[in-house]
Amino acid sequence: MVPDRLKRLSNTLREKGIEHTLLSSFVSLRYFTGYQATVELEPSPMTPLLGVLLWIYGEQPTLFLADMEPGEGVDGSVLRESFSSYVIEKPMFAVQDLSAKLVAKLRLLPKSKVAIESEEIPAALLDTLRSECPHLKFCCFKDVLSTFRMVKDEEEIATMREALALCDLGQEIAKQQARANQTEIGLFSSLRQAMEAQEGGRVPIIADVVSGPRTALTGGPPSARKLGAGELLIVDLVPRHRGYWGDSCNTCCAGEPQREYREAFDGIAAVLSDAIGEVRPGLRVCDLDKRVRTGIAKLGGSYPHHTGHGLGISWHEEPRIVPYNTIPLEPNMIIALEPGMYFQGRWGMRLEYVVRVTASGAELLSKYRHAL
Amino acid sequence: MVPDRLKRLSNTLREKGIEHTLLSSFVSLRYFTGYQATVELEPSPMTPLLGVLLWIYGEQPTLFLADMEPGEGVDGSVLRESFSSYVIEKPMFAVQDLSAKLVAKLRLLPKSKVAIESEEIPAALLDTLRSECPHLKFCCFKDVLSTFRMVKDEEEIATMREALALCDLGQEIAKQQARANQTEIGLFSSLRQAMEAQEGGRVPIIADVVSGPRTALTGGPPSARKLGAGELLIVDLVPRHRGYWGDSCNTCCAGEPQREYREAFDGIAAVLSDAIGEVRPGLRVCDLDKRVRTGIAKLGGSYPHHTGHGLGISWHEEPRIVPYNTIPLEPNMIIALEPGMYFQGRWGMRLEYVVRVTASGAELLSKYRHAL
Repeated sequence: MVPDRLKRLSNTLREKGIEHTLLSSFVSLRYFTGYQATVELEPSPMTPLLGVLLWIYGEQPTLFLADMEPGEGVDGSVLRESFSSYVIEKPMFAVQDLSAKLVAKLRLLPKSKVAIESEEIPAALLDTLRSECPHLKFCCFKDVLSTFRMVKDEEEIATMREALALCDLGQEIAKQQARANQTEIGLFSSLRQAMEAQEGGRVPIIADVVSGPRTALTGGPPSARKLGAGELLIVDLVPRHRGYWGDSCNTCCAGEPQREYREAFDGIAAVLSDAIGEVRPGLRVCDLDKRVRTGIAKLGGSYPHHTGHGLGISWHEEPRIVPYNTIPLEPNMIIALEPGMYFQGRWGMRLEYVVRVTASGAELLSKYRHAL
Repeated sequence: MVPDRLKRLSNTLREKGIEHTLLSSFVSLRYFTGYQATVELEPSPMTPLLGVLLWIYGEQPTLFLADMEPGEGVDGSVLRESFSSYVIEKPMFAVQDLSAKLVAKLRLLPKSKVAIESEEIPAALLDTLRSECPHLKFCCFKDVLSTFRMVKDEEEIATMREALALCDLGQEIAKQQARANQTEIGLFSSLRQAMEAQEGGRVPIIADVVSGPRTALTGGPPSARKLGAGELLIVDLVPRHRGYWGDSCNTCCAGEPQREYREAFDGIAAVLSDAIGEVRPGLRVCDLDKRVRTGIAKLGGSYPHHTGHGLGISWHEEPRIVPYNTIPLEPNMIIALEPGMYFQGRWGMRLEYVVRVTASGAELLSKYRHAL
């Protein structure tokens, strides 16, 4: 599918009158080359960039990767070159080495334009390119790229099904372990252990695991707090599988829920179910947002966050389901919907499913079922 | 300790004739403000920068943090302001909002210089500052900062002792679990579970967990591979605790080691012990590197990587213990030493301890003991 994405990129560039591309964001590298960078650690102390994709008009796209990067998943249609990030023979000079390699290619070009991601390219690198290649104009391409990945291709849908299966497993374990005296972190460690056993490898994961009054905060990392009997627990799990993120949220109760919780749970579940019933191509996401917010308001609640968002290589992407966003749904968009209600200082609750927009409605991709 | 660090920064700026500072790297924000950013996830889809520290001459330093950031750990000597990264009311505009806030402050200054980290500032942000504030000169400060954190203060040493205690625990569990038929990922999940229980929260961790012939590769992430009886296992654990990284490596055997492994293990342990005996203020790290490489060569082996490195807010920092580096050791540097030997296609082994340079020698901070 990488060749199809590159072709679409190429067509878009032509329409905009831009000849070349130099992409440097984490998500663009994944999307346009297949490269799956390691996550789960802070920015590398060896290099500010793990790689860049340079695509000169008429040539084959080339991924320049830091020499310490394994470069897993890179598609056969993309050439590979490396640049030195950390070697034991001399001081670190990743930016210098990379920029020298880029300049060697760019210097030869006639006067032309290069699309860049100006928010995701270090100033030091762009400064060098500009001063060495004054015949080139570097144009920010952010607006185009922000909606470029909204509609998922077959390969993406298949990978996301697998990522969402990890969510299903995690939610199952969370529900089993949600009992009085279990700690948030103990529950989290257990469910991740199960995910990693299923994956056969590490599973990077973003997670809200909050219990009792912490649920009113909408989220937060798992702490040493012990669940009290009858308390609520929000578990929002966002694991990464082969470069794609799953997403899921359930709220359950450590023991028997009080009536107020049961009513809220049933109410949110009904609003979510109604929203999924509304999903279809052409529906503007602001209208979907409004319907869900109104539904929750009728229950006497509200939520300060988005109603949902696109999901894929990034754990949060267009279409953002928020009040101002007029993007219409299209087939094969994959969106998370996550209404909730929160009462300051008391408790909160959120339920989330991920769906794929189909030709006429929605396919529910999350297979676990919300259970209080 | 943040005020002391800021004072030292201020003195350095004065010596260089620079009035103001605008710092944007992850590690500088931690060091100069105390702010502990979350790790364990890819770059934020909401903002290319979680924050910047602006310190205008004669004023109090101000940390501008993305509004979604909790800002844990920020020192009382640093003012805080936020910028909008993601709100549901309008499209995302983190860079625009942050740059507008910075321009509002910088525009008022007389002609002067601003120290920046040009490799860790997005071009889009610096472009705006330059065009709106042509009276300012933005100077890269990388060389100064790369060695600024080498000598640790008391607070850092205390935090790193705690980070290293997590390593000790992890190595203990790894040794217990290193038996035939255990998978690399199963062993890894177990040891992290124990760390997270001790920590009472999530523990970001970088880890090599490789067994059998994979040990010859020097490292890699844990996989679904099952340990075979008598096979080697390299476990290199780098957990993060309150913004500081521990580091440790042991090589052990799933069952009874063959004689070749035992001899190599004893040999590497002796080389490491000799190296620790040599550590003292004034010793150039290239000389330490040479001594360790020579020691391993005498055993008939070699390693392609560094002999060791500084450790702290970053999991790899100066002093890098490599052949070209003439930095002399100083009291309260904290360094990891990690000799190994690797035989292509066959097996590899590495042993690592972390030490603090004292007034006259070394204090061994790693408390687990290497055991084959």
